[in-house]
Amino acid sequence: MAQPLDGKTIILRIELDTQQAAFGQAAGAIEQAGGDLVAIDVIETGRDRTVRDLTVKVNDTAAVPAIKEALGAMPGIRLVNVSDRTFLLHLGGKITVQPKTPIQNRDDLSRVYTPEVARVCQAIHEDPAKAFTLTVKRNTVAVVSDGSAVLGLGNIGPHAAMPVMEGKAMLFKQFADVDAFPLCLDTQDTESIIAAVKAIAPGFGGINLEDIAAPRCFEIEQRLRQELDIPVFHDDQHGTAVVLYAGLLNALKLTGRKLEDAKIVVCGIGAAGTACTKMLLAGGARDIVGVDKEGILTAGKEYAHPMWKWYAENTNPRGISGSLADAVKGADVFIGVSSGKLLKREHIISMAEDPIVFAMANPEPEIRPEEAEDLVAVFATGRSDYPNQINNVLCFPGIFRGALDCRASEINEPMKLAAAEAIAAVIDPEELNRFYIIPSVFNSRVVSEVRRRVIQAALASGAARRTPRE
Amino acid sequence: MAQPLDGKTIILRIELDTQQAAFGQAAGAIEQAGGDLVAIDVIETGRDRTVRDLTVKVNDTAAVPAIKEALGAMPGIRLVNVSDRTFLLHLGGKITVQPKTPIQNRDDLSRVYTPEVARVCQAIHEDPAKAFTLTVKRNTVAVVSDGSAVLGLGNIGPHAAMPVMEGKAMLFKQFADVDAFPLCLDTQDTESIIAAVKAIAPGFGGINLEDIAAPRCFEIEQRLRQELDIPVFHDDQHGTAVVLYAGLLNALKLTGRKLEDAKIVVCGIGAAGTACTKMLLAGGARDIVGVDKEGILTAGKEYAHPMWKWYAENTNPRGISGSLADAVKGADVFIGVSSGKLLKREHIISMAEDPIVFAMANPEPEIRPEEAEDLVAVFATGRSDYPNQINNVLCFPGIFRGALDCRASEINEPMKLAAAEAIAAVIDPEELNRFYIIPSVFNSRVVSEVRRRVIQAALASGAARRTPRE
Repeated sequence: MAQPLDGKTIILRIELDTQQAAFGQAAGAIEQAGGDLVAIDVIETGRDRTVRDLTVKVNDTAAVPAIKEALGAMPGIRLVNVSDRTFLLHLGGKITVQPKTPIQNRDDLSRVYTPEVARVCQAIHEDPAKAFTLTVKRNTVAVVSDGSAVLGLGNIGPHAAMPVMEGKAMLFKQFADVDAFPLCLDTQDTESIIAAVKAIAPGFGGINLEDIAAPRCFEIEQRLRQELDIPVFHDDQHGTAVVLYAGLLNALKLTGRKLEDAKIVVCGIGAAGTACTKMLLAGGARDIVGVDKEGILTAGKEYAHPMWKWYAENTNPRGISGSLADAVKGADVFIGVSSGKLLKREHIISMAEDPIVFAMANPEPEIRPEEAEDLVAVFATGRSDYPNQINNVLCFPGIFRGALDCRASEINEPMKLAAAEAIAAVIDPEELNRFYIIPSVFNSRVVSEVRRRVIQAALASGAARRTPRE
Repeated sequence: MAQPLDGKTIILRIELDTQQAAFGQAAGAIEQAGGDLVAIDVIETGRDRTVRDLTVKVNDTAAVPAIKEALGAMPGIRLVNVSDRTFLLHLGGKITVQPKTPIQNRDDLSRVYTPEVARVCQAIHEDPAKAFTLTVKRNTVAVVSDGSAVLGLGNIGPHAAMPVMEGKAMLFKQFADVDAFPLCLDTQDTESIIAAVKAIAPGFGGINLEDIAAPRCFEIEQRLRQELDIPVFHDDQHGTAVVLYAGLLNALKLTGRKLEDAKIVVCGIGAAGTACTKMLLAGGARDIVGVDKEGILTAGKEYAHPMWKWYAENTNPRGISGSLADAVKGADVFIGVSSGKLLKREHIISMAEDPIVFAMANPEPEIRPEEAEDLVAVFATGRSDYPNQINNVLCFPGIFRGALDCRASEINEPMKLAAAEAIAAVIDPEELNRFYIIPSVFNSRVVSEVRRRVIQAALASGAARRTPRE
């Protein structure tokens, strides 16, 4: 499934045999095939060959194969490569490791390396807690994936997962000044992943697990939380849960409801659905009904999935059963973390008055806003091209910033609730409206507010090992 | 074994109870105890307490305990911390992870992260070799240690090893623009280390093993070389061997000898000694005699150490036996990678005319240059405070730069020999003299020359998977 080319600008690298072909011919062919030649960069010139990068605008991406074909048919011209802006941004990767101070002379060298560094090593050896002040552990998070559940692409493996993890590392730095490093593991075995993460932990102040398939993600996270003394946070579960909960707090406020009284349907009981449910329960929700492929999850039924068993036993207090249609009847809130187009207009019509719909399946929501907007009080999706995007980027930078600053040993339930309340609180009551229940990821108040409240919660709950100065 | 304080400047952080103590008293006490107060930084002020950093010069490091004691005896003053420049340089660690491009708006975000990043992931999934162009794998090396043999400090563990590995990462970047990331492992079990390194390998273009104790370092390196398709290089072994060999090439040239004819004694048959010997054999040396605690290693004797058995069978062609004194008699070259003060003047006197002595034990050489300089033609040590320092920093940045640029699958013997020849060749024949057989680590020609020759050797030996443009 090749995705469409980015924007309308492509870069063609061609190698020209100057004995056989003239550049003008290539330029002519590109224009004829529907491309507009905007820039030429000479990369290499030799006696009888030349390599050039041609930046070409196309009005229609269909022109790209036509251009390729035209150039391919010309003798003496070899099309080396076709790139677009996204691919060019990824050349050589997206992050770099920089020294904080330059090493300009022997004196500098002797301090940051042998022999002087030995005194610093010795100090940590005598008091291991000093690792938090004298090494990068203070500010560094590992972004760990096994490449088994990457975006909507599925099990594409560790090499192909790297661009996502690098992107995540960029976001950590840009939004919260956290140094994050991607580690994509060449194993999809639960015990091997646990062993690898435990092995690399000493240099890190936190572990962000990412895009690891269910159900192994549960055991991996649970075991690592038990066995490590630094925060371990599976962002696909808890990041989603925190931001959903933040949005829901504001949606409930806007529609005059209380979480305790709301009838909530969660559709799709995987990693994210379970985490969202746990968070809603921790926040005080009482009436949650889960729906998956086998219909409503009800206590007493047999489920292959241990997660579904837990879910059935801890939700659905009215003990209802049936299909999605039965679940949503009279419900106040629909939370979708399942797959595209599962929710119908008639489902929404059967919900309570002023229903709240969070259709977060990606890239295709459970129902598109344009199909149901007239029926709902508040609509949210996981997409950036509709209002109210439930985006993990609102959570992970700030929650780790807070956790690192107070040297938290874990990210616990109170800290996650505090993060959600912080995100919700960034929107002032007078700004709050049905198209603005959740702040933008570029809102600079998000990280500082999340950090502040997460530290408070960590201190109150005993997870903090240090009280930050400000 | 606390090492002496760095230089003559310390920073005292004090907390003052302003009800009980006045700052002037503290300042007076410091001056009286032999400190010269050069700067005051107010860190925090409250109604009745204040925190200040005092930069203090001392003529004598003995003044430091006196200052501490004087402050400790004053009511209302608490000495929070004493730092020096080296420790301050290490605060929060020495490296940072930076995005290569800023994420300024939603458009940027959509390219480096979802949804556009999915196309890049997909491209790598379809052609895994693209990981080398589209991720940090192209330029990134893991610096891996288990903290079991750190500098002269021994088995201080992974947390305490971090400052060395961070320093190494700084050197990689500063000297060769290689992005290196430190991974200090919370295991000292051979199989667990191998498993952890294999697990994290997908995101890296090379593995630099560091400060791992013998004999496990041999198996770890050998197995990883077999099982990974990226270079694995144990710097303590091969970095030392390369730089030693470079120095020896110039020392032989200076004294008019050929490697093939030289009688060489290697003292200390551990990781470094074995690696140096293998390299000398690969370079054409024929008469090498190894000496360790049990004396000269001779074929046919029983050795507990498998490494010694290999050594005895592959060296000592004249089949001599005895002690170090017997080994050095008539030898042209002494190479020491053992421990301090093992070599005596009478040993050197018994060597051939114009002997070459590389006394590389650290921090105390097998014999000090001042004790033997009058007897030798060329003297080298591992120390920065004598001429001719055999320093790994001359090797690892350039050798990895070359290996990454040609996408080498390994760092093989021809590449190491090429690196050594490159380092030796940086010194012009007319500059070569007994106090200048090896270039400075700050000589900017070292990395580019090492890179160039390593790439040539990688291409010639089939290790290269790409021909770099320049």
